[in-house]
Formats: sequence, structure tokens, C-alpha cells
Amino acid sequence: MRIDETHDPARTSWVESANGHADFPVQNLPLCIFASEGRERRAGVPIGDFLVDLPAIADTLGGAWVDELAQPVLNAFLALGSGPRVALRKRLSELLSDEAYRDAVEGCLIGQSEATMHLPTLIGDYTDFYVGIHHAINVGKQFRPDNPLLPNYKYVPIGYHGRASSVRVSGQPVVRPNGQRKAPEAEAPEYGPSRRLDYELELGVWIGPGNALGDPIPIDQAESAVAGYCLLNDWSARDLQAWEYQPLGPFLAKNFLTSVSPFVVTPEAMAPFMTEGFRRPEGDPEPLPYLAGGSEKPGLGLTVRALLTTRQMRDAGMPPHQLSQGLAADAMYWSVEQIVAHHSCNGCNLQAGDLIGTGTLSTASPDGLGSLLEISKGGKQPLTLPSGETRNFLEDGDELILTAQAAAQGFVSIGLGECRGLVVG
Amino acid sequence: MRIDETHDPARTSWVESANGHADFPVQNLPLCIFASEGRERRAGVPIGDFLVDLPAIADTLGGAWVDELAQPVLNAFLALGSGPRVALRKRLSELLSDEAYRDAVEGCLIGQSEATMHLPTLIGDYTDFYVGIHHAINVGKQFRPDNPLLPNYKYVPIGYHGRASSVRVSGQPVVRPNGQRKAPEAEAPEYGPSRRLDYELELGVWIGPGNALGDPIPIDQAESAVAGYCLLNDWSARDLQAWEYQPLGPFLAKNFLTSVSPFVVTPEAMAPFMTEGFRRPEGDPEPLPYLAGGSEKPGLGLTVRALLTTRQMRDAGMPPHQLSQGLAADAMYWSVEQIVAHHSCNGCNLQAGDLIGTGTLSTASPDGLGSLLEISKGGKQPLTLPSGETRNFLEDGDELILTAQAAAQGFVSIGLGECRGLVVG
Repeated sequence: MRIDETHDPARTSWVESANGHADFPVQNLPLCIFASEGRERRAGVPIGDFLVDLPAIADTLGGAWVDELAQPVLNAFLALGSGPRVALRKRLSELLSDEAYRDAVEGCLIGQSEATMHLPTLIGDYTDFYVGIHHAINVGKQFRPDNPLLPNYKYVPIGYHGRASSVRVSGQPVVRPNGQRKAPEAEAPEYGPSRRLDYELELGVWIGPGNALGDPIPIDQAESAVAGYCLLNDWSARDLQAWEYQPLGPFLAKNFLTSVSPFVVTPEAMAPFMTEGFRRPEGDPEPLPYLAGGSEKPGLGLTVRALLTTRQMRDAGMPPHQLSQGLAADAMYWSVEQIVAHHSCNGCNLQAGDLIGTGTLSTASPDGLGSLLEISKGGKQPLTLPSGETRNFLEDGDELILTAQAAAQGFVSIGLGECRGLVVG
Repeated sequence: MRIDETHDPARTSWVESANGHADFPVQNLPLCIFASEGRERRAGVPIGDFLVDLPAIADTLGGAWVDELAQPVLNAFLALGSGPRVALRKRLSELLSDEAYRDAVEGCLIGQSEATMHLPTLIGDYTDFYVGIHHAINVGKQFRPDNPLLPNYKYVPIGYHGRASSVRVSGQPVVRPNGQRKAPEAEAPEYGPSRRLDYELELGVWIGPGNALGDPIPIDQAESAVAGYCLLNDWSARDLQAWEYQPLGPFLAKNFLTSVSPFVVTPEAMAPFMTEGFRRPEGDPEPLPYLAGGSEKPGLGLTVRALLTTRQMRDAGMPPHQLSQGLAADAMYWSVEQIVAHHSCNGCNLQAGDLIGTGTLSTASPDGLGSLLEISKGGKQPLTLPSGETRNFLEDGDELILTAQAAAQGFVSIGLGECRGLVVG
């Protein structure tokens, strides 16, 4: 991932809302799928408050890959890997910063407020990992105070398969799921709406070129399997989860909905913001050889945030309350490259358009906890909101908002957009 | 599911190999996708040793649903539900039994030996359940001798999400997966090929009409969500599984490959063979209301078998050795209808073409154990084969064959075909 002229902080756009935009300055240029005014789904790129309609400027873009961009999902384009991504980025950066192209492109901008966002890919498989070590410790402490981390954690990037069919783009209402829950003192479970509905602040990884079945992706090639990043909310029904998860893992507690932000923020856009990644504490085992190596800066320099508003707060005109904030690289014991290498080491095939969740990103700090389960200590220490309301878990009418920004000295900050969900009971 | 003239035991086919065929008499008529001689994937129906090329006889078939049958996967046809399935079955039964249609149809038969079978659907999601109670007890005993069944088992049809991308049709070679494994006495795990490669004898369920996100399928409608059945081998690396599965369930131990038989045996074909299902032992809890009710005969009257050949056995011309045999209905604590109702009760959306595994089908009998883990008591009591070889787990060159037959007084038996896999190390 090289830093080139597309990252030049002096470069601005003739789309004025892009300059100083928290998420989409001309240095970001993520990919998405959107529809507008009865027109079908198509590929786009957000710039400031607008979206560039990519098929509409196909001739101006040029490139052998415009056919892959002329589809209602990005799978085919992401499968092409970094070459076309880099070429598209270079060309768009030029078109959107050089006033000379304004006439050719301006008619193909659509206001984001007039667009409906869709999932960027047809998701073949969705896998969720558990690489947030502080989350694993915080949750483990609630079950095993003396031994919160299981013995495999520092050797195995723990992951499990999630449900692809119920992944939705930001804005999908969160219908409180029914399920079995059993109070510790109860003799038998009962069935009904979850009483411990929670969010999980995660990042999502979109897979680009995958691998054939039986053909692992070595760690030193894992970087090239990644097509981009998004925010991911792994909505979780804690009461259902506690009762169902033994011995095969979470199921109905999670598969009722997973929300993602609509924009695929590319590794190219992230180049200036990558870090050395998680520092293993003294005494921790070295990663096994198949998980060692990879790029020099595999750490995601993204500050992730979760915010909450309640109906009462919105009615009173109060702004969202920040629940947590933390740097992803400080939370992730395993890097995205290690995740990819591990996932495929047994020959399991990843496919373009697949989605991988990192797991909940909590930092070591009390203001960096990525779920209410952690913030409320398992529902024992309710959070008090600025409205005076308290929360152990999410209530009907609550809206959860995830955001992420990347910043680095000498570069223009970029963001991933928003991942929102309103609990509708 | 009514029994009609298509089940008439007096009905024979002019395709002579169909009469007395173990799997595909004219009373079965399952669906599949196949290719032959450079011709693309298309829908077919096995009859005896042949396949009927459905698009080739579209005009003879008639029916508004022939367009859905003219696709390289069955998703669209399965989404139509039982109406078109029943109509197709009726018409095919007529065409293949009445000599008058021989001229119109015979030219559209392809020998199965000349065909390449493919997956019947594009699998959106694959879920594996754990409804084989004897398997759960047998495996549980190896970990918790005094308390083999976890407290949730008799309330919750336990399931987890598997990998859709690595589901393959019968015949796919089984590449021994690499992964982390840790001997109990070892300080740290090591990485390498699995030493405890196993099979799991399961049935697969193909989903027909699904449900919208947030819209559960009630138990009394669950039957209509099922489009058919197949055999499923949930290949499992026990050493990888033991080390990785806490706390989120099996992952790399399973997702390197799942094999299915190619034929979708419809609920219509199974109508004469359904049974009352599992009898809960005295004292077991009643199913919660959302899992109670459904059809009168939800039990699968399928005798499932696992057979093994080794390289040495094949070289010596010895037949496959039967590892186990048992009736699915005797193994399944939860019915397929209960599985469907549970899976969707939280709003999780099932989609046409989805695949659901039952979990390993072991009966209470020592000759009905559906995995080597159970047969060899966790690798402690090796099985002796007719060749004199012994097995705790699968070795390179071993081939595993799953079959299933349904039989009932007064009806012609049908079968699911085969699910094969050769371990290639």
C-alpha cells in the first residue's frame, strides 16, 4: 500500500462539501451501491454530501474494469483486486479535484440525501471473529472471574460463521427478537422477546480476490485479499445467547440482524493510517509461523465510536451520547491479515464479496467498551444518560450509531460513514 | 403431503433400470443439476441409471414453472413451493411410466455415468443442527461422563452456522486440513495436518419458500418451507475442533469441506415414509409452544448408512464395510419442522436453496453410530476392518460412502443416492 498523490493533503475537490468532510473528502473515495429515484442499484463513490454515479461516467473513467463496475453489486469488481481499485482511485481523484472535469462529472452527482444505500456485495459468507482481547477478557470475567481468557485465545484467532442472509445496510430497523431465555434460578426456560438486547461495535472487512478450496492464503499474501473496511454492528440478544451458546456457539442470539455501513473504504485510502498493530504483552506466546510475518503495518488506525440516542433524548433535541471511543489497533489482538491467513489455512475458500467481522472492539480503557454488556457489567451497573434515563441494555426507541475516523499527522482525515439502527421493539 | 397415484407400487417405468432400482424408481423423481459433454448445467431428474434432461422436455412438461426449471440452479424453482413440485412430479410420473411418451422423452435421457453432478442450488446459507440426541450423548460422555447432555439440549434445537462456500457435491476429494491442535499434556499447540479426521453421517434439508427478515415461520407452516432432503457428510477434524471450539463453536474443524448427495428428494416422494417421529422419554420436558404441533408425521423414515473402504480393501476387491445403520427418526430428538420453526423464530430469514444439516444421526444401538469419534470411543477403541486394518480416524486413501433408503409396507422403496468422499491427504 503506497502513499501517492491521491493522499496529498493539498488536494481539494470542486465538490465543496468534500473539503473538510468528516468522512468523504477527496482522499477517501470508498465504493458503494446505491439507488435513486426509481433507478436501479448501481456502483457509486461518495464525495462530500454527494455520490458519484460510476456507470454514468464510465466513458470518462475509462479502464478495462468498467464492465465490472456496471453491476448491481461490487463482487465482480472486488474480485479484480488492487490493480483496478488503484486505477479507479487515481482517476476519480483527478476527476473530482481538477476543475477541468467538473462539467463532465457534475451532472452525474446525486445527493446522498436522495439516494437509498444498499449492501455493497452479495455476501456469500459472513464470518465473525473475536479478536478484541479486552472484550474477550471483559466478557470472560463475567463467567470466569479468575480465568477470563480461555487457553486458546492467544494462539487461535477465534471466529465463527454468522448468517449472511440477515446482514443489512445501516438504517435497517432492529426488531427485538423472540427466543428462549432462562433465568439462573428458573427451572425451565421461557419464550419471548429478548430482555437483554445489545449492540457490538465492530469493524467489517470486505474480501476481494479469494482463494480456491484447498488453497490457503499465506500470511504474506493476506493483505491482497482485503478489498476494504466498514463498520459492523453485531446486534446481540444476551439472554438468548447465554442459554443457547453451549456447545456450538451463538446462533439465534445473533442471526436476526447484522448491520453494516454502506461504504467499502479501500486499503488504498487507509494506507496513511495503518499502524504497527497490537503490541503483545511481555510473556505472551509468539504467533505460530503461519500467523507470523505479513505487512509491516497491519494495524487499523481507526478510531471507532458508539453513540446512543433515546426517544426522550431525541424529543428533547439532545445530541447522541457517546458510549465509547477507542483505536481499533489497540483492541485487536489479531490483525486482519492474521484473520485471513487463519480462516483459509485449512483450505476454506474465501470469495470476493464475503464479509468478515473483527469482533467487538473494546480498548483497555473504561471509556472504550464496545457493548452494553461490558458498560453495564452484565446489567448490574446501569449507565446513566444525559437525559437522566438509565440503561442496562437497549430499549425500544433507542438508536445506536457507530462511526469511525482515521487521522494521521500530515494527512487529511477520512471516515467510514455511519452504521445506524433503531430498536423498534 | 398426500399419497396419490405417483406412489402406486404397480406403476413401473419404460426405463427398465428404474424398476427395482434402490434409489430411483419412478416413485422417487428427485431433482438435481447436472452437466454432460460440454453442455452447461441444467435441471434433471434421475430415473434408474439415467437422468431426464428437464429443459430438453420443457414443451412436453408444460407448466408455467418451466422457466424456473431452465436455470443452472434450482433456487428459483424451489422458491415456488409445493404446487409446481407436485405438478412436475405428476407429469414426470406419467411421462416415464406410460409407454406412449417413450418416443417423446427417451431422446432426452442421459446416462448418469456420462453426467457430472453439481450442487442443486446456489447455497445462500448453510446451517448445521445437532438434533441427534444419541450423538450428543456419546460425544458429551467423552467430555463430561456424569453429565453428557447440556441443560439446554431438551429445550433448544441446538444449531450453528456452517460455511456455504465449501459445500460440495458427492465425489469431491477430501483434502486433509491443516490447523492447530494441542495434546492435553502439551504446553502449546502445534500446527499441521489433522490427525483425527472424521466423518459425520447427517441428512441435509433443502429450503423452498423461505421467510422475510423479521417474519418467523410458525411450526404449523414449517413443513411447507422444506423442498427436499439429501445426505450430508459434515467432515470434521476432531483435533482442530477440540482446541478451537471454545467459546464460539466449531470453525476450521468443519469449514474445509461439507459434502452432499446431488439429489433433492422431495417431501412428496417421502410422503409414504414419514413417521410419528422421536418419542421423548418419560420425564423429558414438553417442547415449548412455538415448537409444539406441526404435522402428524414429522419423522423421517429413512434408514441411513455409512460405509468405508480403504485403499487396501479396494485393491483386494473387497466391498465397502458398513460402519453404521439406523433410522433417522430414531436419532432425531427434534424434527425438521421444529428445526425450521426454531431457526426462524427470532426473525432470521431462510431463503430458497439454503441448506440445513440435521447433525450426526446416531441411534441408541452400537451399530448405529454416525461418526468414528463415537465408534472408536474418541480414538481409544480402534475399529477392525475386514481387511485386518484398524481405524481410529480416517486415513489417506479411505473412502466414505453415505446412503439412505426409505421403505414402507405396500410402497416401492426409494433412496437418496450416494454421498462419497475419498481422503487424499
